[in-house]
This record gives sequence, structure tokens and C-alpha cells, in this order.
Amino acid sequence: MVSAKMYELGTKKSTIRTIFEFGRKRATEVGEENIFDFSLGNPNVPTPKFVTDAAIDIMRSYPPAQVHGYTVAPGNPNVREAIAESLNKRFNTHFFGKNIFMTSGAAAAITICFKALAEPGDEFITFAPYFPEYKVFVESVGATLKVVKPRPADWQIDFDDFKQLLSDKTKAVIINSPNNPSGAVYSRETLTKLAEILKQQFNRYGRRIFLISDEPYRELAYGVEVPWLTKFYFNTLICYSYSKSFSLPGERIGYIVVPNAVDDFDKIFGAVAGAARVLTHVNAPSLWQMVVGRCAGKSVDVTPYERNGKLLYDGLIDAGFECVKPQGAFYLFPKALEADDYAFCERAKKYDLLLVPGADFGAPGYFRAAYCIKAETIERSLPLFKKLADEYRS
Amino acid sequence: MVSAKMYELGTKKSTIRTIFEFGRKRATEVGEENIFDFSLGNPNVPTPKFVTDAAIDIMRSYPPAQVHGYTVAPGNPNVREAIAESLNKRFNTHFFGKNIFMTSGAAAAITICFKALAEPGDEFITFAPYFPEYKVFVESVGATLKVVKPRPADWQIDFDDFKQLLSDKTKAVIINSPNNPSGAVYSRETLTKLAEILKQQFNRYGRRIFLISDEPYRELAYGVEVPWLTKFYFNTLICYSYSKSFSLPGERIGYIVVPNAVDDFDKIFGAVAGAARVLTHVNAPSLWQMVVGRCAGKSVDVTPYERNGKLLYDGLIDAGFECVKPQGAFYLFPKALEADDYAFCERAKKYDLLLVPGADFGAPGYFRAAYCIKAETIERSLPLFKKLADEYRS
Repeated sequence: MVSAKMYELGTKKSTIRTIFEFGRKRATEVGEENIFDFSLGNPNVPTPKFVTDAAIDIMRSYPPAQVHGYTVAPGNPNVREAIAESLNKRFNTHFFGKNIFMTSGAAAAITICFKALAEPGDEFITFAPYFPEYKVFVESVGATLKVVKPRPADWQIDFDDFKQLLSDKTKAVIINSPNNPSGAVYSRETLTKLAEILKQQFNRYGRRIFLISDEPYRELAYGVEVPWLTKFYFNTLICYSYSKSFSLPGERIGYIVVPNAVDDFDKIFGAVAGAARVLTHVNAPSLWQMVVGRCAGKSVDVTPYERNGKLLYDGLIDAGFECVKPQGAFYLFPKALEADDYAFCERAKKYDLLLVPGADFGAPGYFRAAYCIKAETIERSLPLFKKLADEYRS
Repeated sequence: MVSAKMYELGTKKSTIRTIFEFGRKRATEVGEENIFDFSLGNPNVPTPKFVTDAAIDIMRSYPPAQVHGYTVAPGNPNVREAIAESLNKRFNTHFFGKNIFMTSGAAAAITICFKALAEPGDEFITFAPYFPEYKVFVESVGATLKVVKPRPADWQIDFDDFKQLLSDKTKAVIINSPNNPSGAVYSRETLTKLAEILKQQFNRYGRRIFLISDEPYRELAYGVEVPWLTKFYFNTLICYSYSKSFSLPGERIGYIVVPNAVDDFDKIFGAVAGAARVLTHVNAPSLWQMVVGRCAGKSVDVTPYERNGKLLYDGLIDAGFECVKPQGAFYLFPKALEADDYAFCERAKKYDLLLVPGADFGAPGYFRAAYCIKAETIERSLPLFKKLADEYRS
């Protein structure tokens, strides 16, 4: 009667969902304040006041049809110009409005790129640990996702494994830096090498590989540079969302940058428009387009995340965990205290520490702890992490 | 390099788009006020003040995370309850929040239903004249769209042709009442007969057919009842959007009703969630969910559309056109003055009357005139329609 595949995708509970529901149940038993939920990547810094003020002011000062009417499919022309200008100022680039395609968030942005590019038999490559929806989205456009194995020393790229997976079927490589779940930021060195390999690959097969950069965490970086991708490799599509930087995840607003330098700009931009159409993203929500246009380039205070990251990192190291230092996003990705990360996360539940197994992100033996929660909750969790670690030592 | 299909879908200019661009060009030559653009279905009644006030009040009174945070995929539970209650009051139904799935507008709602239901080889049936995106959306989920021929006498259903197209491959029937482009509203008699045939079909093939009702124009009806579908046929999915009733087309907000009575509720609802996920509708825009929840059931003033419809209808009849009386939506669908509706619309352009050929909607020999424009523009267009008609008579 129904599509078996859609039923499966709509009903199979994700690990995170299961953990979340466990937390809700436990909260009714032991009280909300005794649940230490590190499972959700939901920004807890409030939406900046300048964003809300802009939304209200726009509704008050423009005729409703201009605010709430359809925009053309790629988005409000003024907004696209404002975003291009803001990128140019920050990254010394030369984009115009025509290089920007407004989308309903980053999930739409990356999937629109996948769908625009995918031809039968195509392969996409990404790097573990990775956001598991990549697999769902890549497969939904009829392509295959290949995953490069993780490099736990620093969560940069395992280039030997990457080279093994490249083939004449590779259509695009997907990166996510700052990374969910590792918190790593790809260095200039990593990106230079990545670009070099992609260029070599063209010489080998005569087929240009696209680099798709999924960067909703761009502004959430702590004392490290997040290099701008088109400076390293010209055939790059950049996918951005305001979900994290402006704490607007529910409003679904973001964009794709299609640089002029990309192979065959007109073809790509046209295919992006076609993909948005069949994915039924008629236009990105129109009020939020105007809001992000007005706030383009405004900076957001990420110090609460930075402080939280340091607090949790220091506490975990103190308790005896191994963990790469946080560089960006709002996740730590420490080593589990036993090989089986599922078993480890189960054991952590005894202390009401809710953690996500690394295997869910293609990196077994590790776990993700999202620190976009109250600092006070993190503080109170530290003795529990210590007890958990002691349990393993005894 | 890119998907040829996506490129085609993203770049092939629609007739309406071509007409729109012609209008923009002519406006620079003869002045905005001398262009009579009847081509766009863009609501011109402003967003009601109670809607904008609700949006501002919600942003002022709730913590930002509650307004702008992710909602669960089917939508904010309170909003879903409010919508169910409002439907129950208006249509004497018995829905709960769990019967409502919030979507990013009606295009998403109907395509989510198509994708949730479609299995290989499935056919969907709709009735000419019809919204041409149905074909794009049905084909995008791997199914085939069959189109029942129009019944120009009253734009109700040609049941003989409908019966011819039903087969053991029919998965669902799509209706749109009040109709774009005909303005017709399906009568109780039409719906009773439609339901009867669908039930007979089950007896014949043992396969239940779904009825998908696309009803963004539900509130835009003038002196006629728009019957509530689940009273006629239980296996019905209802797709609604606030684009027209609240003049919010750019904000992308609507919902699907999945009644308990539908065949295998859990399967359908699960598949709907899966389809929304792969179409990357993470959740319907969260502020607008809260706004429509608060405004659920509030009535909108449709008299400006009703007046415009009457004004244009009377003027066209007076000029000698044949046209079914407007019942709903904001379109008239008169007979063209020559068999070739494209040639007719070209000739109308000489008077800067911008009309859409009926062939675009699967009904050649007719044309669509959208009357969601200023009454004054309609008034000034009437002598031009008269001149155009005189030209054909001379």
C-alpha cells in the first residue's frame, strides 16, 4: 500500500531519538536537573536580539506582500546581493547575488547539490566521523556514499584511505568543517592536500570532482581559522545554514554558493534550481530571507560554547578520558572506555549521562558529547564522568 | 557532469514565466499601469493583521528556543492539536493532533503524499484542467500521471473518461477544489459519485485507492459549499496551505491531514514522515507553525476576490466571452475566441492583456485569467477585452 522504503525511513528510530526518549522518561523519575543530556545538537545560545528585532522591524515597515509573498526560486535578489557582499568582505572573494541560491536550511542545501549532480552509478565520498543523514540523502538521489575511515589522532583526513576510495565514478566529495561530531576544523595543510589529490584525479580520469562543503558551524570556531574553501579548490559548492550561528534551526534558512569558477556555472545553477523544484522547496521562507539579508555578516557571540567546550574537555581529561581538543562546533568526541561504544554509552546511562555512540557516525570506539547545554549542567556532570571512569579502572 | 533531468527542470521556462517577463519588459515601455497582468496566482489581499500581530507577539512573549528551535518532524504538538480542534469545529470531524503533519506549504504536502504512497509501476490520476506541477511531482517519485479529460460545461468531472483511466495500477486520485485554473468547486453530487466509483474499484481489484485532496483555496469560495472530503470517502489525505487564505505564500506553511479511518494509519503516517525526511523538509518553519496554530479557524475576508471575480466575469460575458461562473479560488477560465489558445493569448498581448493558455493546464481552447489583482486594473482592462473580442467578430 505504501512505499516500504519511506515507511522504514519514517519509523526506524535513530539512536539519538531513542536516547532522547530515555532522557524524557528518566526526567519524570529523577527530575529534569538530574539528567545530563549530551545527546542533542540543538543550539542553546538564544537567537541574537538583533535577529528577532530585524524580523519584527521588517514586518512592521514593509508591505506584507513584499515580506510574505513568493520570491523567485533562487531567492530575494537583494538578500542574495547582501550575502554575496558579506562573503566578499570576510573572505576576499568576488561573488555576486547570482552566485547565491537561498535554501530551507543546510539539509536542503546539500541534498539539492547531490540531486543536481547525481547521474546513474555516481559515488559520493565523505570522511568518518560524519553526519549520518548524508547516507540517507545521497541514497535518496540514487547515488552511493563511500566513507573514508577516521583518523582519531586529530580527526583530520586519512589520505591513504581516501585515495583508495576515489574512482572514475566519484562525482563529489563532502566535507564538514567544523565537524559534527568530532569538533575538528580542517587545517590549511589538510585542505591543500585534499585539493591537490582532487586535481590529480582530474588528470587521471579527465573527470572533474566537485567538493561540497557543508558548513553550518563555520562561525563556531575557537581560536582557529576556518579556511574558505574556494581559495583551495575552484570546483566547490558551499552549503550554509543559519541554524547554529543565529540559533534558528526551526526556521530552515540557509544558502548554497555556486562560484563562477565552478565547472560550467550555468549548468550547475540550472540543475540546482531543478533539484530545489522537485524537492518541493518552492522558495526559502521569505521573511527569514529578508532577516538574514539584513543581518548578513553580523557576528555572533560564541564564547558560551567555547567556555562550555573547555569546561567539559578539562573535566574529561581530568577524569582520565582521551580526547582531541575542541576546535569548533559544539561537540567533543572522546574515546570510549571500552571498545564497544554502545556498551559504554549504556553504562554511562546508569549515571544519567546521555551520550551518543561513535559508531552512529562511522567511528566505533568513540562517543559524542554535545556541549550546547547549560554550563551548570556540565559542571554537575563532571563528578559523574569521574565515577564512570573509576568504575572502568576498578 | 550534472543531472540532465534536473537541468531541464531548472531551466525550461514555463509559459507563465515567459508571460511574466514579457510583462516586466512592456512595463518599462508603456508604464506599469498599462499592463493588465492576469497571469499570476499571487494573492493580492494583504496578510491579515491578526497574522502579523500573532507573529510579533509570539516572538516577544516566548523564549527564542521555543519559537525558533527544531520541532519534531510532524510539527509542534500544540499547533497540531489546535488545527485538529479547529477542523473538528468547522467540519464536525474527530481529529487529534496525531492526525496532522505540518509541512512547508502545499507543494511539499502533496509531494510528500505522492512519495509516501508510490511503489514501482503506480499510476496517479487527476482531472483537467489541472496545476501542471502535479506532473513534475508525480514523475519525480517514479510514478505516472494520467489525466482525465476536461468537462467544459461546468468543470466538474467527466466520469466516463475517469472510469476508462482507472486500472489495477491506480494508487491515488488527486483533486483540487476550489480549482486552479477553472475556479470550479466540486459539488456534493460530484463527490458522491467519485467516492462511489472508488469504492466499486476496490471491489473490482481488491486494491484501495487513495484520494488526495489539494485544497489551498478551501476558504476562497463564493456562496457555494466546499464539502469536506472525508465525509464522502474515508481513504482520503487532505493537503492544505496557508499561502492563499492568510496570504503567506513565501513562508511555506501548511499541513497534511491523515485521518484515523485511512487504510493502515500507522503505515501511512510513518511513510509520510519518511517522505518528508528524504525531501529534506526537516520541519515546517517553526515560527509560522506557532502563528497558524494561534490563528487556526480565524476567518479571512474573501470579499475582495469575490468582487473582482464578479467584475471580470460580468465584463467578459458583456464582451461576448463564454465562461463558467466563478465559484472559488481567484481564476476565471473562459473559452478562447479561437481554437488555438496560444494564438489567442498572443493576440491578447497586443492589448497588453496577459493571459495563460488553457493547454498549459491540459484544457486547450481556454485561457486562465487570475483576478487577484487591483479592481481598478480589472475595470480598465474591460474595454480592451471588448476590443479584442470585436477584432475576432470583424
